[in-house]
This record gives sequence, C-alpha cells and structure tokens, in this order.
Amino acid sequence: MANFINQRQFAIEWGHCDPAGIVFNGRFFEFFDWGTWSLFEAALGVRPPDLFGTFGIAGIPLVDARARFLAPARFGDVVELTSQVAEFRRSSFDVEHRLTVRGALAVEGRETRVWAALDAADPSGIRAQPIPDDVIARFQTR
Amino acid sequence: MANFINQRQFAIEWGHCDPAGIVFNGRFFEFFDWGTWSLFEAALGVRPPDLFGTFGIAGIPLVDARARFLAPARFGDVVELTSQVAEFRRSSFDVEHRLTVRGALAVEGRETRVWAALDAADPSGIRAQPIPDDVIARFQTR
Amino acid sequence: MANFINQRQFAIEWGHCDPAGIVFNGRFFEFFDWGTWSLFEAALGVRPPDLFGTFGIAGIPLVDARARFLAPARFGDVVELTSQVAEFRRSSFDVEHRLTVRGALAVEGRETRVWAALDAADPSGIRAQPIPDDVIARFQTR
Amino acid sequence: MANFINQRQFAIEWGHCDPAGIVFNGRFFEFFDWGTWSLFEAALGVRPPDLFGTFGIAGIPLVDARARFLAPARFGDVVELTSQVAEFRRSSFDVEHRLTVRGALAVEGRETRVWAALDAADPSGIRAQPIPDDVIARFQTR
Repeated sequence: MANFINQRQFAIEWGHCDPAGIVFNGRFFEFFDWGTWSLFEAALGVRPPDLFGTFGIAGIPLVDARARFLAPARFGDVVELTSQVAEFRRSSFDVEHRLTVRGALAVEGRETRVWAALDAADPSGIRAQPIPDDVIARFQTR
Repeated sequence: MANFINQRQFAIEWGHCDPAGIVFNGRFFEFFDWGTWSLFEAALGVRPPDLFGTFGIAGIPLVDARARFLAPARFGDVVELTSQVAEFRRSSFDVEHRLTVRGALAVEGRETRVWAALDAADPSGIRAQPIPDDVIARFQTR
Repeated sequence: MANFINQRQFAIEWGHCDPAGIVFNGRFFEFFDWGTWSLFEAALGVRPPDLFGTFGIAGIPLVDARARFLAPARFGDVVELTSQVAEFRRSSFDVEHRLTVRGALAVEGRETRVWAALDAADPSGIRAQPIPDDVIARFQTR
Repeated sequence: MANFINQRQFAIEWGHCDPAGIVFNGRFFEFFDWGTWSLFEAALGVRPPDLFGTFGIAGIPLVDARARFLAPARFGDVVELTSQVAEFRRSSFDVEHRLTVRGALAVEGRETRVWAALDAADPSGIRAQPIPDDVIARFQTR
C-alpha cells in the first residue's frame, strides 16, 4: 500500500521569473497549491470547487509551508510537479511536493494543511475537524 | 468643483519585476486596484472591507481595464500613484491612474467599474445598481 | 490568408482568485502574456527563451494592454485562451486574446507590443526596430 | 549587542487575498522578500538595486523558505512585518520574519539565503562566497 501520487507538467512563464531570470520564490508556493488541489481532485474524483460542498468543509488552509531550493527553474523550462500526501493525522495532513527540471530535482516543498469546517465561535472563523476515513482511504493505492 | 485625488507612494519590489528587470505588466493592474481602494477609503472615509456593508454592495467589479506603458519602472524605484474618478455614470464609473517615477509619467491606467449588488437571478451573481448620490458627492471637492 | 491562431487550455487555480471568488483582474494580463509567448513559440518554432538570441532582440515589451471583462472566471473553471496577432506594423504589433469559459466569451484582451533591441543611447535601454519580414510571414497561414 | 531589526507596515490588499478572504500563502513569501530587502537597505544604507554593484554580488538567492501560519490576515488589515538576520554563517544567513495583525503574531517566517557571486563554471551561474565582515558588522547594533 502506498500513497497516491499526482503529477503535473507545466512551463515556466515570463511572469513567474524575477530580475535574476529565475522563478520568484513565492511562485513555488503557488505551484504547490496547484499541486495540492490537483492531487485532491485526482485522488477523490471531486472537482476542486466542489470539495467544500462534497465534504462539508470550509477549506484546507495551510498552517505551515516550506521549500528547499536546490536548483533554479528558468523561463521556458518545462517542469514536472509531483505531489503526494506524506502523512494524514486526525485533522491535519502533510503534502510533499517535488519539482523537477529536465529530470533533476529543483525544489522540494512541504505543506501542512488542516481539514477545516466553519466555526462561528472561533475568531478565525474555522475549526479543524477529523478527516473522514474514506477520504484517507482514497489516497491509498493498492 | 473638482474630483477627489488620492496619492500613494511605494517602492517597486524585486518580486514585482520580470527578467527584463522591469515591473511585469500585470502588476500595474494590481497597483491600480490598490489605488482604487485607497481612493475610495480616502473619499468615503470607510475602510475598504467595510465598503460592502456600509453601502449594501457586493463589490465594485471591473468591466474594463487599460494601461499605457510609457517608461519602465524598475526594482527600487519609488513610484507615486495618483488615482481619481474621471466620471461617474448611473451605475458605473471610470478611475484614472497615473504612475510616475521620479516625477515623470511612466504608466497611465483606466479602470471601468460597476457599483454592484448581489442578484440571485443573474448567472454572474451580481447586478449593477445606481450609485448613491451621496457617494458621488463625497468624491467632489470644493 | 489568415493569421496564425494559438489556443491554450488551463484551469483557474485557487490562487488566481480574489475574495469575490473570481479571477483577480491582474491575472488576466498574466494569462495574456502566457498566450503571447505561446503564440510566438507556435508560429515561429522557437522556444520563448531562445527568441531573444534567434532574432537579436532584447524583448517584446508592452506599450499598451487592455481587457474587457464580460463574465467572471471562477476557481476550477477550465478556460480556453485564443491568441493571435491582429496587426503587424513596422516595429510594433497587436495581439488579440479571447478567453472563454465553457464556450462563452469571458474576457477580451489586446496587447500592443514593440519589437525591441538594446540601445545604450536610450534611457529605457531599448529601441524599437523593424520586425523582420520572415517573422511576419510565419504568422500568416495559407 | 543585538541584531538590527527592520519594521515595515502595510495594508493587506484585495489582490493579496484568496476566495477564503485571507492572504494567499504565496503572498507571505513575497512579503518576506520585501522585508529582507528593506532590512538590508536599512542596515547597510544601500538602496536594494545598488546592493549588487556595491558588494560585487549577483544576488542573495534563497535556498530555503518557511512559514508558519498562526492566524489569518484579511483584506484591509494593516500588518506589521518585523525582519532581522537570525544568524550569519560563512556564506549564508537566516532572516526571521514576524508578521503581526493588530499586535498579534499571525505568521512567522524564515528564509535562508546565500551571498552569491557570478560563476561561469557553475551550471546555476552563481557561487556562494564569504559574507564580508563589514556587512555582518553593520547588522549588529550596540
């Protein structure tokens, strides 16, 4: 049994890059976000905007994000983003992202997210709640 | 009688710029958006997030945006953004933006926006409605 | 004889959208930029980052950009972006962009760009120069 | 002796926020980048774009970035970003960022950056080099 893996390929655009000619760091976190939604869509078979209604959640907000930048990605590079859930906990989970350029690892990322419902009593407006077993099950491949 | 003018000064950041070392064009439209909200805050005396509740609107969505790029703005440049409503119509209005670098005009912009309320009957979810007279009055200076 | 048309399909991401749940206006100009580079790659058979060296230019900077927003694009929408050069002039050209959502036109855009070489004598560092005939020819389909 | 601290205040803009009405995570990394350049300008007395020429470097690229999200920042919030170098090593350094909303810590960030010069022999084009002692000294306050 292993974790479901999602792959996504895309080109680095002019507007992704900074005056050094390489992808601006904040953009990688945007790419990771793309990766997580794609992963959830592929594993759960639910379109991203339908995730909320289908599972009665308010979102999957980030509580932690990290990236290690090993090699630059440049304008015109076609990159591959591989995303998988590294660990499910009671109401939070970690998503690992690996972005490669011509087969070589360029950026490693990790997001920690919460499975969150609306909560009028909380100042942030949301509250972590247990991730359903059948959600977790669909991320496991035989 | 003239139109209320709002000015805002800020520095061009590394992440605003592209591989040519100049501000990426999409960022100017983001700056114009900053300018419009600041202008409304200054003219109406209402914090931007309170604009919706105060006036019973769903937003001031764009229907048209345009920019002319006369000179580049570069990393580290301190720019001045001047914004004013050029014209109020029944339920829409034009905001003009002028961005200067060291006193010289670099970018001219114009946004057309709609004063919009929620409308369950419309597929877009919103409907233009008349701009209140007292809103328009507050944009005019004696 | 007609102009070469490029099409590109992509999904609207969470990070493209604003608190109204629709694509933030500045993002469309980023999409147009994607469209122009893709169009040039498809028409000229040159990867975007190689465009500079292949044609001895410093870039294709924008002098004007415009968009009309007819309908919103939302998180999860799969949109189609169609881009073509509407007109080539001596040293500048117009690119027209049409973004559709489920077949309906949502945003119309137009960029005016310059075919630019480095110029040490100019304060902006670049100078418009004539677009080569064989570049123009490759944008025309039989 | 302590480390030089830089503070910067700014408003959360409409375009910084996602459909949940809170700042999109990638934006915080952009804010951290703003903070680092401001910190260097304040400590070294050198305008950001002049940093390269003044110190003979190609840049201060990131090798690691991290953020913990403790509370949301919303449209219209005026936030304060506090940045300081937590540690200088031979050729790399850590910058700590703290973003507060109404005095409460909302986001903690840490960037690891390299003091880098051009290096034609390296595939990435840059090479870490020792941080000058007088640079480090200017980040220490008496």
